[in-house]
Amino acid sequence: MLGNFSYCNPTKLYFGEDSLSNLREELPKYGKNVMLVYGGGSIKRSGIYDQVVKLLDEGGKNIFEDPGVMPNPTVEKLYEGCRIARENQVDLILAVGGGSVCDYAKAVSVSAHCEEDPWEKYYLRMEDVDNRIIPVGCVLTMVGTGSEMNGGAVITNHKTKLKIGHVFGENVFPKFSILNPAFTFTLPRYQMIAGFYDIMSHILEQYFSGEDDNTSDYIMEGLLKSLIHSARIAAEHPTDYEARSNIMWIATWALNTLVAKGKTTDWMVHMIGQSIGAYTDATHGMTLSAVSMAYYRFIMPYGLAKFRRFAVNVWDVNPEGQSDEAVAEEGLVRMERYMRELGLVMDIRELGVTEEMLDGIAAGTFAMDGGYRAPDHDEIVEILKASMA
Amino acid sequence: MLGNFSYCNPTKLYFGEDSLSNLREELPKYGKNVMLVYGGGSIKRSGIYDQVVKLLDEGGKNIFEDPGVMPNPTVEKLYEGCRIARENQVDLILAVGGGSVCDYAKAVSVSAHCEEDPWEKYYLRMEDVDNRIIPVGCVLTMVGTGSEMNGGAVITNHKTKLKIGHVFGENVFPKFSILNPAFTFTLPRYQMIAGFYDIMSHILEQYFSGEDDNTSDYIMEGLLKSLIHSARIAAEHPTDYEARSNIMWIATWALNTLVAKGKTTDWMVHMIGQSIGAYTDATHGMTLSAVSMAYYRFIMPYGLAKFRRFAVNVWDVNPEGQSDEAVAEEGLVRMERYMRELGLVMDIRELGVTEEMLDGIAAGTFAMDGGYRAPDHDEIVEILKASMA
Repeated sequence: MLGNFSYCNPTKLYFGEDSLSNLREELPKYGKNVMLVYGGGSIKRSGIYDQVVKLLDEGGKNIFEDPGVMPNPTVEKLYEGCRIARENQVDLILAVGGGSVCDYAKAVSVSAHCEEDPWEKYYLRMEDVDNRIIPVGCVLTMVGTGSEMNGGAVITNHKTKLKIGHVFGENVFPKFSILNPAFTFTLPRYQMIAGFYDIMSHILEQYFSGEDDNTSDYIMEGLLKSLIHSARIAAEHPTDYEARSNIMWIATWALNTLVAKGKTTDWMVHMIGQSIGAYTDATHGMTLSAVSMAYYRFIMPYGLAKFRRFAVNVWDVNPEGQSDEAVAEEGLVRMERYMRELGLVMDIRELGVTEEMLDGIAAGTFAMDGGYRAPDHDEIVEILKASMA
Repeated sequence: MLGNFSYCNPTKLYFGEDSLSNLREELPKYGKNVMLVYGGGSIKRSGIYDQVVKLLDEGGKNIFEDPGVMPNPTVEKLYEGCRIARENQVDLILAVGGGSVCDYAKAVSVSAHCEEDPWEKYYLRMEDVDNRIIPVGCVLTMVGTGSEMNGGAVITNHKTKLKIGHVFGENVFPKFSILNPAFTFTLPRYQMIAGFYDIMSHILEQYFSGEDDNTSDYIMEGLLKSLIHSARIAAEHPTDYEARSNIMWIATWALNTLVAKGKTTDWMVHMIGQSIGAYTDATHGMTLSAVSMAYYRFIMPYGLAKFRRFAVNVWDVNPEGQSDEAVAEEGLVRMERYMRELGLVMDIRELGVTEEMLDGIAAGTFAMDGGYRAPDHDEIVEILKASMA
């Protein structure tokens, strides 16, 4: 059953090979001072940086650069971004990059004019935004997080080993996002497939919860089947535009708040993965893949009917003459085989996790209770141990 | 492959059993003069009218009533609504009803301040809106059209026997829509199941087009499976909240512009059905059901792969050892059996269509060319004849 909810997603998307040129329509809506946020040098090597700067110049904008956003944006970087935005009276933050860059841009947008410490107010205390928000636009160069059409913004504090995501309201969503599948072609294979699994994990975290009959579960099965099909093609042929365009679109809809509306969700794989990220700075999608099989085998007995449905509807397992447990397990076997075929990390030791870290990672894992079974501290340690296989 | 497109859907949805109370949040955003648009007396009998008026009174609004919106809103009614809106300097049009009432409200919203004849400008010439638009809000009491979250507005001219839909841009979309599944409980069975088929037809019209690998097709297969499942339950138990809430949500997403993005679409069943509606004033959903099987059997040879996929993925046809034609045909057989089970009209004569009308209905059918095969005039006549079975 669909519970009560409200839904609004005002982000304007421009999708396709020529979509960057739509900056010409969007830029005039904002003031002259644009903060250009990006990560390392990849957008300079690919030429995207030059194209963006040219359009900003043509639009008569003053550009204030804020490069060096790291894969897991830190609280120190956030403070630096806030200073740049404030000192230059920035009117628009333009994020050019993947989910980390978009997340960081949104964190700066709510924090720049915050009179308290934004880490404390918006992350530790998770308060609502009550100060001025600087509008954000995104040019996406990597898919996975869905950050281009939602209010999520994850920030990491290495000192306290906390990686926290605040999901802000629709007034913080990007005003526009430019999605050109061809911009994702040059991503290194490791980051590409990590992004694919990030998408899959977003869908699974919202799927494996609840026992009702809910349209969102049917939509998610469709998204999963399309993702499994297209990711297999893209892993072999990274410049297959059809596959990459489908994946880019799935990523957006997997985490733009649609499929979670009116239903319960789990999110424990992300919580454990984020805690691993705080300890190891590992690539986000790989922290998810490495713990998923152990986590899903842990919760399967508590949500057997859904795992059986997953096996039949997503992995085409023939249920005839088999017990529910056997059907459900066969679904996970096929999922694991597929993950290994893609080349995902399936052992947390490969990410730098050691036995000594397990207790701390479990302690840093935020407990969510929407799934089939919320694991306690010791159970998280067991799941982590089972992820060292 | 996903073609180039832009996407923005700013409508705010309030969904659930208590969603009407969200009018308290929305009303203060608009001026004092509210035009209250509705159809017949059903919202008075159900008590929804009194609840809405109470909230408008509490909000200190001046109410200007515009009742009597008919199932196929006429151009004469549109002129009347424009006069009411202009004369009373209306700040917000609040539509309380089904798709016809929402469509009509949007047509008035763009037409009231149009200096030319809006029928000629916005329907016959299909021009873009360049005059002031009065904002629209919807309280939905019947599902099917998706009008609550899109820019569509169909108007009928009985004199010229033309029923035309203009799909306006996102500035014409309802600012907010209130979706309470319980408000749909009291609809008579005939209208209820006609609405169910309207939803199914919206999905099918967007599904049966193109030969590419497109994520939208996977999403639509999920929506169709959920709809088939929930509509069967609701037809038996109209007050089953779970089924009705899923159907209400499917209806919105079936035609809120999402699943058509980046893909081609057909829409000929709607074009033929609308022409039948202009001749007979029949219930919209039934004009679609009555011509669907003949139309799909006509185009099936030209889009065989998709019809085969439809049979396997939506109707669980086992393809083993069967020709593609046999699998595809079995899918249509199951669909027809399901439609008859629901009690849909499967013969256009039941809607008042006579042999003498066929040529005129075909002549009034707008030709669309996104489908597997655009029928010409004579072929439309043949499809209509085959719909008299």
